[in-house]
Amino acid sequence: MAIAALGPATSLRLNPGSTLRLLSFYPKSSPSNLPAILKTITKPHAIPPKFHHLLQLSGLPRQRFFCSVISGALQSSESAKVEFLEKEKGEMGNRVGEFRKKLRIADIKGGPDEGLDRVGKTIVVMGWVRTLRVQSSVTFIEVNDGSCLSNMQCVMDLEAEGYDQVESGLVTTGASIWVRGTVVKSQGSKQKVELKVNKIVAVGKSDPSYPIQKKRVSREFLRTKAHLRPRTNTFGAVARVRNALAYATHKFFQENGFVWVSSPIITASDCEGAGEQFCVTTLIPGSQEATNSVVDGVPKTKDGLIDWSQDFFGKPAFLTVSGQLNAETYATALSDVYTFGPTFRAENSNTSRHLAEFWMIEPELAFADLNDDMACATAYLQYVVRHVLENCKEDMEFFNTWIEKGIIDRLSDVAEKDFVQLTYTDAVELLLKTKKKFEFPVEWGCDLQSEHERYITEEAFGDCPVIIRDYPKDIKAFYMRQNDDGKTVAAMDMLVPRVGELIGGSQREERLEYLEDRLDDLKLNKESFWWYLDLRRYGSVPHAGFGLGFERLVQFATGIENIRDAIPFPRVPGSAEF
Amino acid sequence: MAIAALGPATSLRLNPGSTLRLLSFYPKSSPSNLPAILKTITKPHAIPPKFHHLLQLSGLPRQRFFCSVISGALQSSESAKVEFLEKEKGEMGNRVGEFRKKLRIADIKGGPDEGLDRVGKTIVVMGWVRTLRVQSSVTFIEVNDGSCLSNMQCVMDLEAEGYDQVESGLVTTGASIWVRGTVVKSQGSKQKVELKVNKIVAVGKSDPSYPIQKKRVSREFLRTKAHLRPRTNTFGAVARVRNALAYATHKFFQENGFVWVSSPIITASDCEGAGEQFCVTTLIPGSQEATNSVVDGVPKTKDGLIDWSQDFFGKPAFLTVSGQLNAETYATALSDVYTFGPTFRAENSNTSRHLAEFWMIEPELAFADLNDDMACATAYLQYVVRHVLENCKEDMEFFNTWIEKGIIDRLSDVAEKDFVQLTYTDAVELLLKTKKKFEFPVEWGCDLQSEHERYITEEAFGDCPVIIRDYPKDIKAFYMRQNDDGKTVAAMDMLVPRVGELIGGSQREERLEYLEDRLDDLKLNKESFWWYLDLRRYGSVPHAGFGLGFERLVQFATGIENIRDAIPFPRVPGSAEF
Repeated sequence: MAIAALGPATSLRLNPGSTLRLLSFYPKSSPSNLPAILKTITKPHAIPPKFHHLLQLSGLPRQRFFCSVISGALQSSESAKVEFLEKEKGEMGNRVGEFRKKLRIADIKGGPDEGLDRVGKTIVVMGWVRTLRVQSSVTFIEVNDGSCLSNMQCVMDLEAEGYDQVESGLVTTGASIWVRGTVVKSQGSKQKVELKVNKIVAVGKSDPSYPIQKKRVSREFLRTKAHLRPRTNTFGAVARVRNALAYATHKFFQENGFVWVSSPIITASDCEGAGEQFCVTTLIPGSQEATNSVVDGVPKTKDGLIDWSQDFFGKPAFLTVSGQLNAETYATALSDVYTFGPTFRAENSNTSRHLAEFWMIEPELAFADLNDDMACATAYLQYVVRHVLENCKEDMEFFNTWIEKGIIDRLSDVAEKDFVQLTYTDAVELLLKTKKKFEFPVEWGCDLQSEHERYITEEAFGDCPVIIRDYPKDIKAFYMRQNDDGKTVAAMDMLVPRVGELIGGSQREERLEYLEDRLDDLKLNKESFWWYLDLRRYGSVPHAGFGLGFERLVQFATGIENIRDAIPFPRVPGSAEF
Repeated sequence: MAIAALGPATSLRLNPGSTLRLLSFYPKSSPSNLPAILKTITKPHAIPPKFHHLLQLSGLPRQRFFCSVISGALQSSESAKVEFLEKEKGEMGNRVGEFRKKLRIADIKGGPDEGLDRVGKTIVVMGWVRTLRVQSSVTFIEVNDGSCLSNMQCVMDLEAEGYDQVESGLVTTGASIWVRGTVVKSQGSKQKVELKVNKIVAVGKSDPSYPIQKKRVSREFLRTKAHLRPRTNTFGAVARVRNALAYATHKFFQENGFVWVSSPIITASDCEGAGEQFCVTTLIPGSQEATNSVVDGVPKTKDGLIDWSQDFFGKPAFLTVSGQLNAETYATALSDVYTFGPTFRAENSNTSRHLAEFWMIEPELAFADLNDDMACATAYLQYVVRHVLENCKEDMEFFNTWIEKGIIDRLSDVAEKDFVQLTYTDAVELLLKTKKKFEFPVEWGCDLQSEHERYITEEAFGDCPVIIRDYPKDIKAFYMRQNDDGKTVAAMDMLVPRVGELIGGSQREERLEYLEDRLDDLKLNKESFWWYLDLRRYGSVPHAGFGLGFERLVQFATGIENIRDAIPFPRVPGSAEF
């Protein structure tokens, strides 16, 4: 049966001249003509693993060793049988091989001497061709493996093994290659070292239709190629900085004793509040059939209502808009927790600042007040910014040159400057005193507009991050702790130059009666908040937290203007492709 | 207006004898009678932060210093004005305070000498009362702050400031307290140190209805109290081990040069395959109105079909079942990546092994084959298991005693033993040779059942983790790489004793023609896979990856039997509460 499936060749396969045929570098008819690549293993580095963190923290990159094959399936039958287990484990089992780190271009060129320490060594590089320059006696190939912005410049003469693959056009922009060579000092000024190639293997060719050629393509266009855009300088750098920000987030909270809690994504809880939520349902059939579903197929009660009892969760369920209320349940048991997961808004905003699906970081601190909360938010932001400045130097220089001039200075300021806090009331007074004209008039009780926030951070406080606190309770959420003045709540918004609001937080109302009154005021149904109120019935504690949209942070740290370019696969009105 | 909201007292509030009135420890009418708590700051520890990792790795806990207030709002007006900024920043801004780590019970009792190094020191502990024993002249309070399993035993005589709060019944199981005292050697054998209390503050009382009293409560019951269960020993320990596993996951991949990629949660891509997906839609109104939605309210075309053009994404959209295909797009640009995010199955399985919402870890390695994949999966599992054994000793001893006897040995075995690999064909042969009778007969081509997998790991290979590889292609997914025999694919399943399949992975089919043929064989629509096929058109590389259900890993590492107890808020058929 398995053989039958392979059986009759399609007409495409029989026609060697067809386009599709050429697209595959491994001809189906002759898989055995592939080059066999030997495993190359360099020696493990002398520093024991437990010191690696120290090296990383002090800015020294770790060296790595590597073990990978181009196509192990070609030789797996041999290599898998190399090491046999002890007899008593049966005659059939083989030991699983050791996992070794790959030698990446970042490891080679990212060191303090930018690769000079490896001059004379033979290494293997695997990656994708960015550019190819064929000169009379020498060919230059720029290879990128995504580990860093830098390419490895590979220099090859006609004698190199496999050079015929260059001649026959297999090595073009976008193609994947395996190259082995000797590290030599570079003649050029752009890099300290380059690779003198003695062998090249074209692993996968690139069809001439490859949409990301060397010429610059717009970011709008690249959004339609979200599967290929990480192969560009900009999106590779964004992906690495995004990764660094995520890891720094975990490091910061873990080092400070916070526990990561996964708040639920689907929720049938009524706490989430009205509107702008996506409904999650199985009343409509799965993907294959959905397109042709009839409305009458949706189960209904005898009154014509949607029969939620037949839905997966037995009642309406939605995608979460925030994990905060759930995080509070864990904070009031484990003291300090944080969430880091996706949240959703079904908001029909087609702007450069909104996503329907975005990642949120929501720490929650027990036995903490608004001052602790502001201090934590400040320390967090400074930590992750410092981490990126220290660990993503090359990418940050790229952003500084091509995306936002001065971003390194802007971030260094954030990492070093004292953050300023002032009350909403003081902020309003400040806005009323200035001679600057605003489009939206200011009065106590109004929500601050972007123009007001920018004036405060950029002009009044000279490009310093500012936290505004103690907002009027009527413009803030029900769960925020009422201040003694009866008019304001212990809320805070952190504003940063250029981006505006980056973090919003508050001390939570821990007093049962105040919270119940507030729910009544807002005509929210107390019964549906039973578990949230329980936290105030049983060992209530002062607690506080904040929320941070992770893609906003990525924008803040990279200078990327459109939030759709700050997440791998953006979801916006009308589009959830890929 | 804000004043008005505070205005007329409800009848509940006017009646001091009512139950609800008593539930609030902070009487709304007199917020000012709360004790003012002074900030207590111990000296920063002498080891600079950059060495903290080293301490952690070598098993030494880090010491912490602390700064928090019980209710800062009570004194924020003073403390916030302590430090003024330079004049030129305006007269209104104050500097944001420094963030300091809390002193947690884990920091006190988790050190190598279990707290003896702090004997004689005055410290503050904040947490929740687990038990209270009042004797004639001395009162024992066990306080837990969630940082570790251990309580801090607080010993108090009648002279302690605030003792009247114990007498008046404010300090009961579940109540939150603030205690200050001197660390002394403990008379008891259960701990090295205890706290001789000189001041206690009852922060939040616990209503007598507190459902988690000292007597043991069933895990079934606790699932209905998911907001309070982290306050129990078992769920506190599960939460901490879950956190440790998540952080170890990030550490492992980051240290090995992988980039974390957030694969999309909502997808309108047709790649996901049929069935068992949740539909995500805005055609049904948000939470407030959903309950009374009429079926006729769903937009329809003139043919009575659901009018998807009016939905948020303009076509049917679903919750992702896997991030793998998206991860492949980043692996073929950045080399090695991993996802760690929620995934969903609308599978109507009410078992102890299934969740509708669960977290998945999906690494994807470029320039890698099945051997690299198995090696990576093995190294990953051993790394996270070692991390938990080293960093969660107390919690693991708890599981070893109360949840699964011998779990520490079982995990130590996994961390140390060589994993065995064998082909599916060999596994079938082995199953056919044994005299053991199985419920499900074995023949080449069948899916292995749990009884078969258990026989292989537990009996044939003596409790050793086993990887079975090279499965028949007809029982595996379309994207797996076809082996040269034409019958099998380069797939692998890792089986571990007691839990069964923990990890499933494969080398991916990187050859365009093979992949297209496979899609044709399975009657899948090639057009909808255009971007996935593009990865094979432009610089295709051998690549491989695996998937791991994070809650299965939590079960594996804790011995917790029901997967609903391995995630904070489980989503299963009929329930998405909290």
